[in-house]
Amino acid sequence: MNKKLALYHPKVRVTDSFWREKIDVVKTNVIPYQWEALNDRLPDAAPSHAIENLKIAAGEKEGEYHGFVFQDTDLAKWIEAVAYVLEDQADETLEAQADEVIDLVVRAQGSDGYLNTYFTVKEPGKRWTNLRDQHELYTAGHFIEAAVAYYQATGKDVLLKAMCRFVDYIDSVFGLEEDKRKGYDGHQEIELALLRLYEVTGDEKHLNLSYYFINQRGQQPHYFDIEKEEREENSGTHMWKDVGRYGYSQAHKPVREQDEAVGHAVRAVYMYSAMADLAKLKSDEGLAEATKTLWKNVTNKQMYLTAGIGSQTHGEAFSTIAYDLPNDECYTETCASIGLVFWAQRMMKLEKQGAYGDVMERALYNGTISGMDLNGKRFFYVNPLEVWPEQSNRRENRSHAKPVRQKWYSCACCPPNLARLIASIGRYMYEVEEDYVYNQLFMSAEATVRVKETDVILKQKTNYPWEGHIATEVHPEQELSWTFAVRIPGWAEGAELYVNAQRLDIASILHNGYALIDRVWRKGDVVELKLPLTPQRVYAHPSLRENAGKVAFQRGPVVYAFEEADNGKNLPALSISPSSVAEAAFEPDILDGVVALTVEGHRAVPNDEGLYQKTKAEETLVQLKAVPYYAWCNREPGEMLVWVREKA
Amino acid sequence: MNKKLALYHPKVRVTDSFWREKIDVVKTNVIPYQWEALNDRLPDAAPSHAIENLKIAAGEKEGEYHGFVFQDTDLAKWIEAVAYVLEDQADETLEAQADEVIDLVVRAQGSDGYLNTYFTVKEPGKRWTNLRDQHELYTAGHFIEAAVAYYQATGKDVLLKAMCRFVDYIDSVFGLEEDKRKGYDGHQEIELALLRLYEVTGDEKHLNLSYYFINQRGQQPHYFDIEKEEREENSGTHMWKDVGRYGYSQAHKPVREQDEAVGHAVRAVYMYSAMADLAKLKSDEGLAEATKTLWKNVTNKQMYLTAGIGSQTHGEAFSTIAYDLPNDECYTETCASIGLVFWAQRMMKLEKQGAYGDVMERALYNGTISGMDLNGKRFFYVNPLEVWPEQSNRRENRSHAKPVRQKWYSCACCPPNLARLIASIGRYMYEVEEDYVYNQLFMSAEATVRVKETDVILKQKTNYPWEGHIATEVHPEQELSWTFAVRIPGWAEGAELYVNAQRLDIASILHNGYALIDRVWRKGDVVELKLPLTPQRVYAHPSLRENAGKVAFQRGPVVYAFEEADNGKNLPALSISPSSVAEAAFEPDILDGVVALTVEGHRAVPNDEGLYQKTKAEETLVQLKAVPYYAWCNREPGEMLVWVREKA
Repeated sequence: MNKKLALYHPKVRVTDSFWREKIDVVKTNVIPYQWEALNDRLPDAAPSHAIENLKIAAGEKEGEYHGFVFQDTDLAKWIEAVAYVLEDQADETLEAQADEVIDLVVRAQGSDGYLNTYFTVKEPGKRWTNLRDQHELYTAGHFIEAAVAYYQATGKDVLLKAMCRFVDYIDSVFGLEEDKRKGYDGHQEIELALLRLYEVTGDEKHLNLSYYFINQRGQQPHYFDIEKEEREENSGTHMWKDVGRYGYSQAHKPVREQDEAVGHAVRAVYMYSAMADLAKLKSDEGLAEATKTLWKNVTNKQMYLTAGIGSQTHGEAFSTIAYDLPNDECYTETCASIGLVFWAQRMMKLEKQGAYGDVMERALYNGTISGMDLNGKRFFYVNPLEVWPEQSNRRENRSHAKPVRQKWYSCACCPPNLARLIASIGRYMYEVEEDYVYNQLFMSAEATVRVKETDVILKQKTNYPWEGHIATEVHPEQELSWTFAVRIPGWAEGAELYVNAQRLDIASILHNGYALIDRVWRKGDVVELKLPLTPQRVYAHPSLRENAGKVAFQRGPVVYAFEEADNGKNLPALSISPSSVAEAAFEPDILDGVVALTVEGHRAVPNDEGLYQKTKAEETLVQLKAVPYYAWCNREPGEMLVWVREKA
Repeated sequence: MNKKLALYHPKVRVTDSFWREKIDVVKTNVIPYQWEALNDRLPDAAPSHAIENLKIAAGEKEGEYHGFVFQDTDLAKWIEAVAYVLEDQADETLEAQADEVIDLVVRAQGSDGYLNTYFTVKEPGKRWTNLRDQHELYTAGHFIEAAVAYYQATGKDVLLKAMCRFVDYIDSVFGLEEDKRKGYDGHQEIELALLRLYEVTGDEKHLNLSYYFINQRGQQPHYFDIEKEEREENSGTHMWKDVGRYGYSQAHKPVREQDEAVGHAVRAVYMYSAMADLAKLKSDEGLAEATKTLWKNVTNKQMYLTAGIGSQTHGEAFSTIAYDLPNDECYTETCASIGLVFWAQRMMKLEKQGAYGDVMERALYNGTISGMDLNGKRFFYVNPLEVWPEQSNRRENRSHAKPVRQKWYSCACCPPNLARLIASIGRYMYEVEEDYVYNQLFMSAEATVRVKETDVILKQKTNYPWEGHIATEVHPEQELSWTFAVRIPGWAEGAELYVNAQRLDIASILHNGYALIDRVWRKGDVVELKLPLTPQRVYAHPSLRENAGKVAFQRGPVVYAFEEADNGKNLPALSISPSSVAEAAFEPDILDGVVALTVEGHRAVPNDEGLYQKTKAEETLVQLKAVPYYAWCNREPGEMLVWVREKA
């Protein structure tokens, strides 16, 4: 297999206390729980039918198809997460379980390579008749990602080969050639999956099929119209007003012409991820420009402080209006922030800018992992920045935002997606390109990176994000000159950098957000980064109406939230003076141990003066406490808010 | 006809410049426009079919029924509004038009008295089979109100007699007697209409039928269940989660057990109005207590500063959660605030409290008339307190809140409802009970009230609400001792009261919000009330989260709004210091002449620092201008807000 591709990942063994705990939760709780779910063995959740559907498709069981059209993907994402867990640490039982189900998947595959239990069992004649709605290639994509990950983790290529056969078949159906359909999926995923496949196969066919899907999207005559006519369907679904038809699927115009993020947020970022990869792999300047423009639109106009994206419930979508970021009625799906991590990593491969790492880190410590409780047993789809449970329970348009995490969803996309992200967190730590090793994320981990055909072991030790001291021992196989590019986060003020205890002048070596340490590295060299983790106030751009007059708190990459559990009811009645100083302290006894903030604030005191009053209500001084946003709702359920009023 | 009833209205001829203008707009624009609509002659609006349906029902035309199930009520409300206009000023053409259409209505009536074109034309066999959804008695109620008003205005009783026949028939169908159906309408209206009928007929049957409908509502076994079973219907509509079934129609429990306002706001206040009247007419203490409890709930927990009610779009309903009053996504239907006026007037008849008049006045100068543009040609259903047009156009859950008034709605309830309210505004000015004459509203008008069987002419002159000087000449037929009870609005600070230029000590004669002037009145006595109209700051109760840290401005009864036309875009970026003094000045050249406010404020200045910033954006001093809320959106469309941030 192909070792020289730009998409190569270093091997990283995570020992970090923050991430290790989460990986262990994934391994110990999430993956077994999901396995039970996939096998319809959860007593208190609707059956998934995912395994059952496969058995029926394989002809090994009688029965009817059940579940969503994309039910297969729950299993695919499970396999992928298992792969990362196995890559991290061998586990015979788990591997045997995965091998067994992979065999079942392969048996459910058609002789022509086709794999999709919905169309095999339920609508055998309808294959490729409704790409717009039916997630057919999306489902294929998730199996491909699973196959690649499982091969990378175990060396076993059963699923990989099966998926290569499937891709051969897909390639025979879709393309610009006259006898092929000019289609692409309504839910993007196959595009980035094919590039991951290309990463291990090096087969240009895989690269080019992905390129075709991306290039063809939104072209005229519109494929979704063509297939709709073929179906003799009158009324369309998923129309997306005011961004043109098919904006929901980012197919309203060719991707190179798209300059603002619209439609379903997960679809969007999956597509942008593939665009970034293709821009690099194909040296496609136009695609690179479009992708960068979209990145700027998302991160400068449509992203929450927690790296949540998709501020609109209707369509689980971007709002398209700049700065339209309500804190309470947003969608901000866990999967969308996960997709933002995928995209950020690929942008960084395309262009070495620390800002991509900043956004990735913002997503990783906030809007992604908030999707799971500390035990990995309950999940949020939706991650709002302000919750008033009584209202969410009452108002129809808040009903998507559950005030407490739920056990399992019938559309279970987020939990396995989060499992695969967390289990593969080490893959986001370093990027290597030519003789540069970029340190993107900070965590205790032992990594082997390959620079100039030489293995270099990097042993990073830190108690990040709670502490700002990050020490990295460098152990090259042999003395070697290369550049260690350490990301200096945008939020960091007064960062210090040392090599073997000698301080470097960051300003003079800072380039696009990275401190470039260019030297001959010897075994045992130690790089120390000291990031001051003073609690910081964050203000929103004045155009972000929702947060006018408000302030949020961040410490390092961690965004803070005020919870009812610490601060009582009616959080909007609180305000904080600009002069109050937030104090940080590690609290081992709450939320599995977090650094919490305390700050003096004011509370408007309820009175009996009626609904509207001639004078302002009195205020009392109160001691307020904020906890990391990701950890909210792990105690008694209640209100939460990130943006608090600032007196000024 | 009955002259002694407590529900007697004094005759009032409005000469007021504020209201006269609106009445003229109703007469000149709204009523003729609606007539064209009813006759399907509007080139740019969907046809109403209301007259057409009647002709078909009368057997004078072939065709099918078109429109909502309650399409008849558009015409009924038109007739009622015409009645008030004719009461105000004779108009032969208009009266001939009304007489003609009334004849048509009577010809469309069945020989048994039944009147409803939907069931006559479209579903002849389905009469009284779905009271829950089909508005059958609601429609009857609006015809009854029209008949009463037309009789009172013109003395013509054609429609009144026809409606008495209809009521006889309804009375033969519904009631507690064994052979009768135990039903009541899903949309309350007949209850209050029957009481208005009772006002002119004095027929106890009318009073008792209304009492039956109110008493029967929400009783078990539930009538909506019974008729649903009879229809062999499986799935119900209009279920209303978490306030019990049928809460949407306030039929979730018997009315005496209801202690918070739930469900569809218009239905609610129409019902509460009937409850208040019945409590008085039947001396029913239990009903009186329930009504007062509901009043407190609505006005202390669920009412906007503009007297808008119904903070929830789903169901056009009350939220049920105290203080859940979002400024932008509320429903606050024009009709609901109109219904609040109806209710307030009836509460005041039940219990002499100035606070009822305060709320009535709040609704009249704000959340009702905001439903119409200054020309009476465009209408809001929904009256939010904050509008960002780009967002309302974009977000599905804001789509009901139009950023500009619309020409005509297919469900055209609000425009004719507003027309009948405005045309009858004089009816809300005075209440007479025993030897008390209550002055509820202030406007230039000549009224004849009857006290102790003596006519008293009251000539009030004022430029209210722009000026606070209100002079009332009193001309009794003969010298007579009675009490003139002048409402001293809750917002008024430092009001002064004079009789024949002699100052009275308000504090010593103030009782439940009224200054009671008890004396022997002689021809030419002059009462002068001086209300200081300093712009006032208003603060919301600390539990009203949406307005935490914000302030609104009110001057007299008029609530103010900041518009983009005066203050530029991004209104939430504005704030006002507590020390800034708002100056009021009459501006004859804007919005047909209004008192506008100017006040110094601050604007956060957009910068290029990105979406999230380490320091607070700079601010500039700006001169802000606010205009009366009711008049917003009469210039170039744009943003608007009522509650602005206060720096503090």
